[in-house]
Amino acid sequence: MALTAEQQQEIDTARATEGRTRRPTVAGLEAMLFQAIPVLDHGFVRVIDYMGDDAAIVQAARVSYGRGTRAANEDRGLIRYLMRHRHSTPFEMCEIKYHVKLPIFVARQWIRHRTANVNEYSARYSILDREFYIPGPDHLAAQSVVNRQGRGDILEGEEAARVLDLLREDATRNYDHYLEMLNEDDDGKARDPGRQGLARELARMNLTLNAYTQWYWKTDLHNLLHFLSLRADAHAQYEIRVYAEAMLDTVKAWVPMAFDAFRDYRLGAVTLSAQMMGIVKRMLGGEAVTQEASGLSKREWRELMATLGRDAG
Amino acid sequence: MALTAEQQQEIDTARATEGRTRRPTVAGLEAMLFQAIPVLDHGFVRVIDYMGDDAAIVQAARVSYGRGTRAANEDRGLIRYLMRHRHSTPFEMCEIKYHVKLPIFVARQWIRHRTANVNEYSARYSILDREFYIPGPDHLAAQSVVNRQGRGDILEGEEAARVLDLLREDATRNYDHYLEMLNEDDDGKARDPGRQGLARELARMNLTLNAYTQWYWKTDLHNLLHFLSLRADAHAQYEIRVYAEAMLDTVKAWVPMAFDAFRDYRLGAVTLSAQMMGIVKRMLGGEAVTQEASGLSKREWRELMATLGRDAG
Amino acid sequence: MALTAEQQQEIDTARATEGRTRRPTVAGLEAMLFQAIPVLDHGFVRVIDYMGDDAAIVQAARVSYGRGTRAANEDRGLIRYLMRHRHSTPFEMCEIKYHVKLPIFVARQWIRHRTANVNEYSARYSILDREFYIPGPDHLAAQSVVNRQGRGDILEGEEAARVLDLLREDATRNYDHYLEMLNEDDDGKARDPGRQGLARELARMNLTLNAYTQWYWKTDLHNLLHFLSLRADAHAQYEIRVYAEAMLDTVKAWVPMAFDAFRDYRLGAVTLSAQMMGIVKRMLGGEAVTQEASGLSKREWRELMATLGRDAG
Amino acid sequence: MALTAEQQQEIDTARATEGRTRRPTVAGLEAMLFQAIPVLDHGFVRVIDYMGDDAAIVQAARVSYGRGTRAANEDRGLIRYLMRHRHSTPFEMCEIKYHVKLPIFVARQWIRHRTANVNEYSARYSILDREFYIPGPDHLAAQSVVNRQGRGDILEGEEAARVLDLLREDATRNYDHYLEMLNEDDDGKARDPGRQGLARELARMNLTLNAYTQWYWKTDLHNLLHFLSLRADAHAQYEIRVYAEAMLDTVKAWVPMAFDAFRDYRLGAVTLSAQMMGIVKRMLGGEAVTQEASGLSKREWRELMATLGRDAG
Repeated sequence: MALTAEQQQEIDTARATEGRTRRPTVAGLEAMLFQAIPVLDHGFVRVIDYMGDDAAIVQAARVSYGRGTRAANEDRGLIRYLMRHRHSTPFEMCEIKYHVKLPIFVARQWIRHRTANVNEYSARYSILDREFYIPGPDHLAAQSVVNRQGRGDILEGEEAARVLDLLREDATRNYDHYLEMLNEDDDGKARDPGRQGLARELARMNLTLNAYTQWYWKTDLHNLLHFLSLRADAHAQYEIRVYAEAMLDTVKAWVPMAFDAFRDYRLGAVTLSAQMMGIVKRMLGGEAVTQEASGLSKREWRELMATLGRDAG
Repeated sequence: MALTAEQQQEIDTARATEGRTRRPTVAGLEAMLFQAIPVLDHGFVRVIDYMGDDAAIVQAARVSYGRGTRAANEDRGLIRYLMRHRHSTPFEMCEIKYHVKLPIFVARQWIRHRTANVNEYSARYSILDREFYIPGPDHLAAQSVVNRQGRGDILEGEEAARVLDLLREDATRNYDHYLEMLNEDDDGKARDPGRQGLARELARMNLTLNAYTQWYWKTDLHNLLHFLSLRADAHAQYEIRVYAEAMLDTVKAWVPMAFDAFRDYRLGAVTLSAQMMGIVKRMLGGEAVTQEASGLSKREWRELMATLGRDAG
Repeated sequence: MALTAEQQQEIDTARATEGRTRRPTVAGLEAMLFQAIPVLDHGFVRVIDYMGDDAAIVQAARVSYGRGTRAANEDRGLIRYLMRHRHSTPFEMCEIKYHVKLPIFVARQWIRHRTANVNEYSARYSILDREFYIPGPDHLAAQSVVNRQGRGDILEGEEAARVLDLLREDATRNYDHYLEMLNEDDDGKARDPGRQGLARELARMNLTLNAYTQWYWKTDLHNLLHFLSLRADAHAQYEIRVYAEAMLDTVKAWVPMAFDAFRDYRLGAVTLSAQMMGIVKRMLGGEAVTQEASGLSKREWRELMATLGRDAG
Repeated sequence: MALTAEQQQEIDTARATEGRTRRPTVAGLEAMLFQAIPVLDHGFVRVIDYMGDDAAIVQAARVSYGRGTRAANEDRGLIRYLMRHRHSTPFEMCEIKYHVKLPIFVARQWIRHRTANVNEYSARYSILDREFYIPGPDHLAAQSVVNRQGRGDILEGEEAARVLDLLREDATRNYDHYLEMLNEDDDGKARDPGRQGLARELARMNLTLNAYTQWYWKTDLHNLLHFLSLRADAHAQYEIRVYAEAMLDTVKAWVPMAFDAFRDYRLGAVTLSAQMMGIVKRMLGGEAVTQEASGLSKREWRELMATLGRDAG
């Protein structure tokens, strides 16, 4: 992560400012507010603002006049009921805003979640930082041979070294040429007073997809949990999953009851088709069901056995 | 407005609770927080929570590390520029949550604004209050004879008296029968232990459209302003316009710079078609343009002359 | 259902018109096009238009240049994979448009699904039909005593008769008074030339929530299936469920492969929490798990046993 | 544009297939169906499917049983009225689906329009084509010196030549290295059987932002017109504007009445603030208003004078 001294100073100043409010406050999240949580080699996530807490979910579900909470146990039970039965509207009553620094190829996956508000750093107007994502050696994965959109073994030796060289050299060279086309130095001064410099909205096209961009991203708790259920999942690409994992910590600090319910009923949950459920019932009745007798395709049978923690036979 | 003593007590308790926060706070809106602003005969609007302030708009537009504000003048200029050129995303970075009590026929118009989060009081689960909207004598309008979906003169005398009687009697009788079908008293006790009572989800169908419902409604500033530009407009139905007008006051207290820009560039603005603009230019050039020579239909000509504050000729 | 002769004539004329198109067509749905499928006592659903078919899902998933389909088996497999793994975007590439006539209290539940396009019959501009939903004797349910928002036994005898009388009388009287306030006859003529008539946007507030309204409703296949998974469910209120069931038939005619996948992986599917899945594994391992030893609450234990088709013990 | 013979063959086959339908058809758009309209050096837009026509807008506005149209003049008048008064819901009842090939930096602007359905070619699963956008000499613009996010003069001579060389060399080299890291040849065969090849989801990060991607993009007419009003505007970046202009032609062929209304009331329209309108009235009254006496900032005064086609004084 690369915060300049000036940026850290701005953050510290914001953290030092406190006011009084009648709104619900969450001490655990206040403690994290504005701080940059490092992600990948140059990225971060920071919480900029939030609205509501666990009690606000209860309050909205009850359309209350006051705080709407009763005993903590009762609130917890209601939140778990709402999560289990997918009554999503009360969770939409909490809102959170992040500032995120992330590689462009990650931003392109992320932006597909349409129910959020976004302000991205404009490379039509400003100049992007000299920062690119280069995978750590542990994350330099080969193409999977069983899953056409997944990762396989970690590359090693010469092949790994060559890949890292290419990524680093190409990103750096393209960034150097980006500045050259803009006719700018790293410190923002014109290189050659005799040249005009290419328009920023054009020059940015020479950047690589591992260049870092940044944005303000704001969403409600329901849509955030949906995003996290997809992106904190083992099937998500590693480079977006680490952002989701950092954000899970902020959710845990913010709405601990909702977080627990989410972990139990969504993150760790399993959905079985009608056919799969029929097989489980036959197995519970003592029958030794085989793939052939199951009616499932081989692929689905393997998925079911994996879910049940059993040998696919 | 009909807050019970218990409801007012809950509100007072919430108002008496204060905490410390690092988030931006707005003194003017804190002062209004939770208080019910009366609207119509039994309705209200109250602000339940908010996120962000004028500076948060600037901060998002700049994707800042700190508060993001500069001189107040510079912030004001940027906000006005964003509003004038319809750069809407920075305004989406502020969020507000209301508790609203409103007649069902108003709720049916309001809900058509889809980019908001809503939790409505469930008449499948609970029993609605004995409250109906009865127009005041000044708002008992006849059907317009020139505008097929508008209002004309105010009804008077016997016709007005008869309308008010019908509205009051029908709403009251239907509510009485609603309780009777539910087998409930006004105080929630069973009327006749020998009966079961009709399911709530069915009994509610006997209510009239002027019965009051209530909901929590949360939206971002951009979508709120769009809602207000349509519903605080002179063409909006009076019964929803009064809600929009009460909400305008809360926006003014919350984000005064954005409010001023909205008033100048949206509420008071006029859009002229290419043809209309051509006519204005001819008039500015000294030509005495007539409807016949304008190329506009009679209807559009009347609209243009009204906009320019001139006689339609 | 109450189509006038004139309305049926308009439908027949539309059905008699055929054209040639290069777009995908679905014979099964063409056969149903424009026909009103009766729902409840006066309601209906009719398909007005559609875009795409099963092959269009495949085509979008592959971002194809041509039709995008291969062997039917391969297409079916891909559609089932997409459904099972909740890759929802290819299903969004099919679109359907309905004309629906429905009671207002049903419309109020339905409109909560925000990702659809809606044009509702405006009672500010026109006058609603003299039609109200009156439940059939088999659907006149008492309030459930175990589920606070559900139905219990069917009402019978005097209580049932009284409820039906009240619903019928109140709806009819309120409609009569609606016309009287409008100063209109059933055939649209002024009753009393000396009166002005109340504005339509006001008079409608005297109608009951079982009055019928109508709308055009358009959505994509993904959001339609989400709507149907909630509203064709046993927990949905009967009066909206019958609409969902009628629409399921149209989906089956339109995209039979997607329909089958939806039925298997969504309609008939069960989601188990991490804890529930742990218990199933213990039971499959031969352990006789009890509620006390399960770690589940009594309520969740009952839900799990019901899912597994076992006695809750 | 670079359609392979195989791709053109797939398109021709699709165009040769016709069926019968009861749905509305539009001959002018049928003629364009599936054909790739070239945009930029390697991009295109093709219409894949559509739902509705001008009459469908009228039909929805009237919630009709039949086709809903009357005399063409009456339909045209209603469509113009709806457009002028921003009654947007009837326009949402028409839907269109495109296949677009476009540079990634253009895709990143385009995707910010959230109310559309998108299926993008997945570079996690497949390998992108060897195609990059290189601006033509006429579009190689310098950074504007008056507008911080706009374009100025066209670069010429050595500076232009150097920019074009850099863009071409960097994109080509990065693509070569992309294939090398994947361990693939241009024809999809492994280069070196001894290597595994980097995972596709990682290798793509080496591509430049002017590489071409492609997607299926589907939206309703109201949201399409909103997109076009922003992107066919003179302030839009040239590289997205040319896509918008190609799409305007498809809209004109599809819904000619709506297109004319859009051109008059939206594309060519001007919005004046309350203050600006006041000044126009003073000028029409014969007053010679100056910037100083106008109450407008210099910037707004210049904008107003430009709109009125007058000298800013």
